[in-house]
Amino acid sequence: MRILASEVKDHIGEGITLLGWVHRIRDLGKITFIILRDRSGMVQLVTEEKPDVTVESVIKAEGQVKKNDKAPGGVEVLISRVEVLSRAAHDLPVPVNQDPKNLGLDAILDNRIISLRNPKILSIFKLQSNILKYFARHMRSEDFTEIKTSKLIGTGTEGGTGLFPVQYFDTKVYLAQSPQFYKQAMVSSGLERVFEIGAAYRAEKHDTPRHLNEYVSLDVEMAFIDTEHDLMDLEVRILKTIFNGIRRDNEDELSQWKAEVPNEEELNRIPRITHDEAKEIIGKKTGSRVFEINPEGERILCQWALEEHGIEAVFVYAFPRRKRPFYTYPIENHKTRSFDLLFRGLEITTGGRRINEYDMLLESIERFHLKAEDLSDYLQIFKYGCPPHGGFAIGLERLTQKILGLANVKEASLFPRDRKRTRP
Amino acid sequence: MRILASEVKDHIGEGITLLGWVHRIRDLGKITFIILRDRSGMVQLVTEEKPDVTVESVIKAEGQVKKNDKAPGGVEVLISRVEVLSRAAHDLPVPVNQDPKNLGLDAILDNRIISLRNPKILSIFKLQSNILKYFARHMRSEDFTEIKTSKLIGTGTEGGTGLFPVQYFDTKVYLAQSPQFYKQAMVSSGLERVFEIGAAYRAEKHDTPRHLNEYVSLDVEMAFIDTEHDLMDLEVRILKTIFNGIRRDNEDELSQWKAEVPNEEELNRIPRITHDEAKEIIGKKTGSRVFEINPEGERILCQWALEEHGIEAVFVYAFPRRKRPFYTYPIENHKTRSFDLLFRGLEITTGGRRINEYDMLLESIERFHLKAEDLSDYLQIFKYGCPPHGGFAIGLERLTQKILGLANVKEASLFPRDRKRTRP
Repeated sequence: MRILASEVKDHIGEGITLLGWVHRIRDLGKITFIILRDRSGMVQLVTEEKPDVTVESVIKAEGQVKKNDKAPGGVEVLISRVEVLSRAAHDLPVPVNQDPKNLGLDAILDNRIISLRNPKILSIFKLQSNILKYFARHMRSEDFTEIKTSKLIGTGTEGGTGLFPVQYFDTKVYLAQSPQFYKQAMVSSGLERVFEIGAAYRAEKHDTPRHLNEYVSLDVEMAFIDTEHDLMDLEVRILKTIFNGIRRDNEDELSQWKAEVPNEEELNRIPRITHDEAKEIIGKKTGSRVFEINPEGERILCQWALEEHGIEAVFVYAFPRRKRPFYTYPIENHKTRSFDLLFRGLEITTGGRRINEYDMLLESIERFHLKAEDLSDYLQIFKYGCPPHGGFAIGLERLTQKILGLANVKEASLFPRDRKRTRP
Repeated sequence: MRILASEVKDHIGEGITLLGWVHRIRDLGKITFIILRDRSGMVQLVTEEKPDVTVESVIKAEGQVKKNDKAPGGVEVLISRVEVLSRAAHDLPVPVNQDPKNLGLDAILDNRIISLRNPKILSIFKLQSNILKYFARHMRSEDFTEIKTSKLIGTGTEGGTGLFPVQYFDTKVYLAQSPQFYKQAMVSSGLERVFEIGAAYRAEKHDTPRHLNEYVSLDVEMAFIDTEHDLMDLEVRILKTIFNGIRRDNEDELSQWKAEVPNEEELNRIPRITHDEAKEIIGKKTGSRVFEINPEGERILCQWALEEHGIEAVFVYAFPRRKRPFYTYPIENHKTRSFDLLFRGLEITTGGRRINEYDMLLESIERFHLKAEDLSDYLQIFKYGCPPHGGFAIGLERLTQKILGLANVKEASLFPRDRKRTRP
């Protein structure tokens, strides 16, 4: 039976079989060391033969486990037999067994099939898998139903800009920017509380460390809320579950990136400031008048939150109506019941209460110069009884990026799509 | 504090607040009954007033809980105050409080925003949410990592047919038919075991009760398997977890549709027959020579399995090479290490071992008249060491359809996309 690298230490003195990749070969003349890598980690193999293997070949190795305090993990395997299951060519396009910090982002992404084998790079996605796990687990614990909605839509939620067109038989549709209308429909269907994990598309020509043209959106929508503060409370609870989960399950991955996540007590301290207060804080720091919160402003606000509240995160709410979509619930002074969450200098969430009153929505559609007839399916949600509700979306890659301190959000996407990149 | 409909029975004698939709109004002259619906179920409200509400309006009702053996659930609420949170118009396009069997599929799908409020229709998606839950839970229990891969690809896995083109800035890409190449890449990256829940697209002009042009694929890929039987074993374990989970959590939904799911003992009895044996069985039943297994053949095979093995499911393996994609692992006599799972008359899974040997793959690409240069990213997976592996995909909507006995797979998609349907 196969033993995983992480289990070898429990089999001292026994004969075992290992399966995995040849991570490194060190030929010392008399003996050869092979570092074998599998999904659980690495283990050192030792042999006096000269095994005919190449780096990255997949092998089956049989041998006996020996204690060796000098070996990584305190054990090594004296191998009696090596079988090459799949031989790797010599010309690896990028090194797998070196720290990726010496590789440029283009080299990493152009050779994604191979660069993902690098344990430090792969660790990003081991952690990301658990963000998905704990997000879903939390939502279910609060009685949310998971939904899967179409990504092919007639028009966007805010008109036709920023959309990728799809030739759908004889007609044209677009890739959805968000499941916004559908999650509102499902709240109103009687599910009340829904979440969706799905792809979202933005046909924006940005090429920045914070933008992807295809990303995974963790969407939440909830009925019978009073204000946007109910949503911020919910998001704090979600982040507690995610951060506690990965702190427990992904110790290795966090330590590879020298990363830490906030604890519950710190998350409770996330300040909530209005958009006007946010501009004032930025204005004081920069000494100039602030018209909108740009990426530099987001960094300043998080730095302020760290200094004042001991957590590098801040909720900004009461955004002006002109900065939010037409369906955002308005309040006095042309403000709205909407919010962003900034975390470690980056907006990772946008959300808010939505308009649930039919007449108010018709008025807003007109104010935003949209046409009610283009939104007739959407309007049915409200014409036939819709509870007060709201929601938000967390960008999976941005959250991953900020947890691990990655320089570019593209590093947190397995196969990123950007302005120029459509492969592999 | 709000009480859910399902919790009312625990509050007899108390004053409570309910939130929900007006499912039905019965005006008996002296008294009026309102059936209130929320995410947990329904409860009867009673009043001597004439409340100014319409069916499907969202209300907040305050009142006192009384035992009443004649009321549904044995309790009712004598309401003292009703507040209309959102008034529904009178002209509902489809009835919400009647059995949907009298509605045609087009009426249901054209008016999806409203028809989803019908409790029987909505129950499909309460159950589907738990298929997603238990699928993911099972995969994680066997150390599979969840991945999210791009749905925008350069070309399809088997050439450019059946693909929807997307205008991606100045270039053209396609919607992915499956994450096949990516999940193989991730197995080979060292994760060994991966799963993905994602959208898949088929630009096929079918209009049948078993086809969707956009569906959710539950994808699995696993390293270090020997044969396709390891994969069938895995699928049986997955189905046990899913079926046990929904039997426990979705009793109401299953009973609404008079549906049952196989138990563990029955799943252990799923027979495994070769493609040749399958054709022979169909031939005996129909009395004519069988060239391929068509939908009628799939029904015959499941009926045969029910009669012979007491379960309406059958694995068919050893498909001929010409019926499977180029990456399928070949064996003698032009057969392959591939399989389908037929369940209640419908193919719900296709899978198999994949070719992991570089030279064998090059040979297969040529045999299938494909070009190695079009598959250069894919070929990197194999050039640099790839373990023996295989996998499969379960169609979420087909599985849902067959669990509940729905006539058409479109009923199991929240917002289905077919040949002509691109809204809502």
